[in-house]
Amino acid sequence: MQSLRDILARIARGETTPAGALAVSQARIAALEPRIQAFASRPDTLQPGEGPLAGVACGVKDIIDTADLPTMMGSPIYAGWRPRADAPIVMALKAAGATVAGKTHTTAFAFLDPAPTFNPHDPAASPGGSSAGSAAAVAAGMIPLAIGTQTGGSVIRPASYCGVAAIKPSYALLPTVGVKPFSWSLDTLGLMAATADDAGLALAAIAGRPELDAPAASLKGLRIGLHLQDYAGAPEPASATALERFRELATDAGAVLVPHDGPAALAEAFHAHGPLQDYEATQALAWEYAHHREALPPKLQAYLDTAQAVTPAQYDEARRRSRRGRDAARAFFAEVDVVATFAAPGEAPDSRDSTGDSRFNRLWTLLGVPCATVPVARGPRGLPTGVQVITGFGRDEQAIAVAKAIENLVARAG
Amino acid sequence: MQSLRDILARIARGETTPAGALAVSQARIAALEPRIQAFASRPDTLQPGEGPLAGVACGVKDIIDTADLPTMMGSPIYAGWRPRADAPIVMALKAAGATVAGKTHTTAFAFLDPAPTFNPHDPAASPGGSSAGSAAAVAAGMIPLAIGTQTGGSVIRPASYCGVAAIKPSYALLPTVGVKPFSWSLDTLGLMAATADDAGLALAAIAGRPELDAPAASLKGLRIGLHLQDYAGAPEPASATALERFRELATDAGAVLVPHDGPAALAEAFHAHGPLQDYEATQALAWEYAHHREALPPKLQAYLDTAQAVTPAQYDEARRRSRRGRDAARAFFAEVDVVATFAAPGEAPDSRDSTGDSRFNRLWTLLGVPCATVPVARGPRGLPTGVQVITGFGRDEQAIAVAKAIENLVARAG
Repeated sequence: MQSLRDILARIARGETTPAGALAVSQARIAALEPRIQAFASRPDTLQPGEGPLAGVACGVKDIIDTADLPTMMGSPIYAGWRPRADAPIVMALKAAGATVAGKTHTTAFAFLDPAPTFNPHDPAASPGGSSAGSAAAVAAGMIPLAIGTQTGGSVIRPASYCGVAAIKPSYALLPTVGVKPFSWSLDTLGLMAATADDAGLALAAIAGRPELDAPAASLKGLRIGLHLQDYAGAPEPASATALERFRELATDAGAVLVPHDGPAALAEAFHAHGPLQDYEATQALAWEYAHHREALPPKLQAYLDTAQAVTPAQYDEARRRSRRGRDAARAFFAEVDVVATFAAPGEAPDSRDSTGDSRFNRLWTLLGVPCATVPVARGPRGLPTGVQVITGFGRDEQAIAVAKAIENLVARAG
Repeated sequence: MQSLRDILARIARGETTPAGALAVSQARIAALEPRIQAFASRPDTLQPGEGPLAGVACGVKDIIDTADLPTMMGSPIYAGWRPRADAPIVMALKAAGATVAGKTHTTAFAFLDPAPTFNPHDPAASPGGSSAGSAAAVAAGMIPLAIGTQTGGSVIRPASYCGVAAIKPSYALLPTVGVKPFSWSLDTLGLMAATADDAGLALAAIAGRPELDAPAASLKGLRIGLHLQDYAGAPEPASATALERFRELATDAGAVLVPHDGPAALAEAFHAHGPLQDYEATQALAWEYAHHREALPPKLQAYLDTAQAVTPAQYDEARRRSRRGRDAARAFFAEVDVVATFAAPGEAPDSRDSTGDSRFNRLWTLLGVPCATVPVARGPRGLPTGVQVITGFGRDEQAIAVAKAIENLVARAG
């Protein structure tokens, strides 16, 4: 993979230039894109910007508005659609000096029908979804940075399946203006990169929050809650193994790991994700459903057919449970510094018909708390599998610092 | 003005048809539009829909996406801009049977630079902003219903200045997807109509929440907190008179009126509105500011120049104060049933250079609580002046019911 920090260091040392770094990314895209199918559209040339990320080629999920490239939502309904303005996240990327290397494939409207993208580790496996192109482009080493979005688990899950690092920051830390909504209470932007170190560096520059380029945390004495999310079902062996490997590494490094189930309000909030998303999605996609239902892919079509049944009263109850869950999370994250859990149910599905399952990600998206994933193990089929670390709302710096500590331990353990 | 409930009753009695009712609105628009300048664009013909609002011609503020009419944001930067999809609020209007009568003039990007619209009560006075065309079109009797948006006071204030009723529901009761954002934590859709009764009827149909078509509340024994918002400065005589008139009417009807200042957290939340809006606006309009700064009108240009200085730390502090304010509001609205306060600083400004001031609306927008206004008095210059009633989050039904009770009292008092 391309390391963002290495690229910037080589530019700083005069070993390459921003244009030279972009040319490397462009060449890798040209070589690998026929096999990976990560991009929905790309500019003809990559021009370097000015700023801390000058020379960084970044993929932008194709539900995010761009003024100079189409924004097609993974759907023929938006074939060739050209928004008027760049979304704020794209403006922030450019203001930091990064260059948009292309729009990355998304599942249609960021739901469950697969994107055309291949998992770089196994052409028969799913790259995950919905930010499939973003995860695969970074994993294949085409680009050092990509933007995705998560409503259930659409950043952390494909990152885990493709073996890259990712950060889903606190809700609204990055503005979702100009991002096609699916469920506005849940939709959150996130970053994927080769390492948590790279992701933290990029997030700091994009958000204008230098403290997010945090050094790796010391795990000595850190209180880590092992949270198995029983309400979400059991994991597959690959993810159980990954969490166990994390536990061993963290314990050896001096962390205090405690089983930590969390209050009942968290399980209730987990179950609120469904009606909350259903009700909002039927509204967010009302025009597409009314005018282009037959052009929607089968899973999304069936989902919206069913989701229409959620009533305002059920939605209001889901919002109340969300609020109670967020209140409970404040107490929860006072008891432990960090929560560790599965990043996905297992390694990437062995069929490209499924993008996998977001059940270990949904609660944290709904709570709006920062989540990071780094690869820690290989599953039975040899595919990378991540662990997920989570902190309290607004503690993004700590989530990044702990993820960096873990990836250092994994690298050292070999 | 055109009464929405009367129109529907006449259709139900067979005295007119939806097409006939729309023809009346169309004729009034044709007659009055040259003088009022309420519309940015209009369809050639009005086709009736099917549903509870069939026959209702509705104005839609021109920052709200429509697929079959331009959406120009009150700015030459979006001249002729045609979004791909209708915003969910437009789909909800159509699903309820209403017909979009046109896009109503907005101040540029819903900020403070005046729209071309005239106040129907006085051509030398401001109609207010930012939902100027929506308020004026209803006030002039062109249409029985209009949609506006409020980030500071852009629904309640122009309604008060133009002498119409309005409801700004709880935050996110109506989805802001497809509405040009200014400050996503604050932006809220609202409805304007001839009466609170009409507005409640329409909101019930659009939101799919029949209980919002509530009967007028009995004021007997109702605990009403008179909240003067000292932190927002003093009102002009017109608004002081309007609140006093409300106090007399409500007291005569048996309500228990108590002075009610509220906790300090409310004043702190009031002051958080500025940095919250500033920080989000610079991001929401990042593309326009970077690429078309010279095309922005002077007040918005100067505002964005200054707003760039707000730091992430100041923004985070404003968000924390907002949350503490919302927590305090839950206790506040347990002590009284309803809060009554000024709808605007006074009657409409006597110059079309200013759209007035949102200082008596900002706090409630930030708290996300339902606000309604109905006209209760005339100011020294003879212009209508409203009062504002506010309830706790999610208690939209009560805000509507109390506003209806007040308008009944005003009508009876003559």
